[in-house]
Amino acid sequence: MRWALGVEYVGTAYCGWQRQAHCDSVQGRLEQALSYIAQSSIEVHCAGRTDAGVHGFGQVVHFDTDKSRPTSAWVQGVNTQLPRDIRVVWAHQVDQGFHARFSAQARQYRYVIYNRQQPSALLHGRVHWERHRLDEHMMHCAGQALLGEQDFSSFRAAQCQAQHGRRELQLLNVSRYGDFVHLDIKANAFVHHMVRNIAGTLMQIGRGEKPADWAGELLAMQDRTLAYATAPAEGLYFVKAFYAESFSLPQLPVNEVLW
Amino acid sequence: MRWALGVEYVGTAYCGWQRQAHCDSVQGRLEQALSYIAQSSIEVHCAGRTDAGVHGFGQVVHFDTDKSRPTSAWVQGVNTQLPRDIRVVWAHQVDQGFHARFSAQARQYRYVIYNRQQPSALLHGRVHWERHRLDEHMMHCAGQALLGEQDFSSFRAAQCQAQHGRRELQLLNVSRYGDFVHLDIKANAFVHHMVRNIAGTLMQIGRGEKPADWAGELLAMQDRTLAYATAPAEGLYFVKAFYAESFSLPQLPVNEVLW
Repeated sequence: MRWALGVEYVGTAYCGWQRQAHCDSVQGRLEQALSYIAQSSIEVHCAGRTDAGVHGFGQVVHFDTDKSRPTSAWVQGVNTQLPRDIRVVWAHQVDQGFHARFSAQARQYRYVIYNRQQPSALLHGRVHWERHRLDEHMMHCAGQALLGEQDFSSFRAAQCQAQHGRRELQLLNVSRYGDFVHLDIKANAFVHHMVRNIAGTLMQIGRGEKPADWAGELLAMQDRTLAYATAPAEGLYFVKAFYAESFSLPQLPVNEVLW
Repeated sequence: MRWALGVEYVGTAYCGWQRQAHCDSVQGRLEQALSYIAQSSIEVHCAGRTDAGVHGFGQVVHFDTDKSRPTSAWVQGVNTQLPRDIRVVWAHQVDQGFHARFSAQARQYRYVIYNRQQPSALLHGRVHWERHRLDEHMMHCAGQALLGEQDFSSFRAAQCQAQHGRRELQLLNVSRYGDFVHLDIKANAFVHHMVRNIAGTLMQIGRGEKPADWAGELLAMQDRTLAYATAPAEGLYFVKAFYAESFSLPQLPVNEVLW
């Protein structure tokens, strides 16, 4: 049997999504909890791996097991075995044609900037604090140059292991809600650090340090040594993975839950 | 010189606002940081003391010092000496007629309930999770019976040290925003555990365990042994203290910042 799960987590305490030998990972914790409920070893695959400090709101994983358990065991049961900063939100049995990573048609991230004179105690670790007033209209306009199928090598981490930098950016919205500036971004897939590099570049433009056409110019250079404006991990949320409707996965209301 | 400060904090890691000998308090941390900046011992007075686990958004304190420092020293300077879950948001010099506690004409709290089938990882410790669907309209109507000057003994903790239970409740609003239910409540002052006891009682009504007139009936009994439905601390925020406009204290936008 193959199951898909919706997973939410605070990335602060973890070395990232991916299981590694000598550190505490979200994947490691989740597999441990699932294996306890199944009473046999379980391995998960996720829609999008996140770096250390990056949060998950609508992460999706799948796993195979020959142990029969009710849906509640894979949600409430697993949650009793997880730390409070990781939660399974839903579980849904899927057929073998579903793969959390390969079936995902697109991924959406949100980068959250808290744009106030003083940092916030309540939001520490959950948002990126920027004290200089950002021009969110300028950032939005500048970002539109990145839409469509492009080579994102200039927004790619030096250590990125993907074969090439071509990705299709389907949405890039920058909007302000009071002291919050949200960067919502959706693509078929992302190269390593792509959202944080775009966020960092748009913030340079929003602070007035670079002109609005800087984002498009950087893109055109296709040079991975240029992505030096990587925004901090703590503002980044993996918000949603998009799958064909035929898989009938539960949908969460994105805008209501995240700040 | 007398200074007023706006203070924000996450209450999770502290034994409450009040300085105590053998535990870590918000007041203790703040006084330590202020004393470091002043290079002499500083004691603060706050608008409303909060219990262990209760958060502060618009807490106000004042202190006296004969050391002359610029405003930035009392904000940015003090923040360098504070843990990330406590932040000074503003500082304003006031005359000796100002007292954070005695000049406050009213206090406002928000109790935040996350009303979803599964708990939230991202909001753990910052909201109260309630899995049973709450009827927020019923809760709002029931709460209106508490408005005005009343004896709140039935909503008072057994250990409350106030001389009497008479308080003037000026506002009580229950509203839903997606999966969030907010209880906004304002009074000239509060007896111990008053907001959490009112929140607990209204949740009993919202779950359908008690009829809508239960809140009013409980109030009429004026019996402090009855307040058994104390809602957990983690959902509670001290939002604002109200002072005469003549003090010219900075005002924060409440609705934009809290979930």
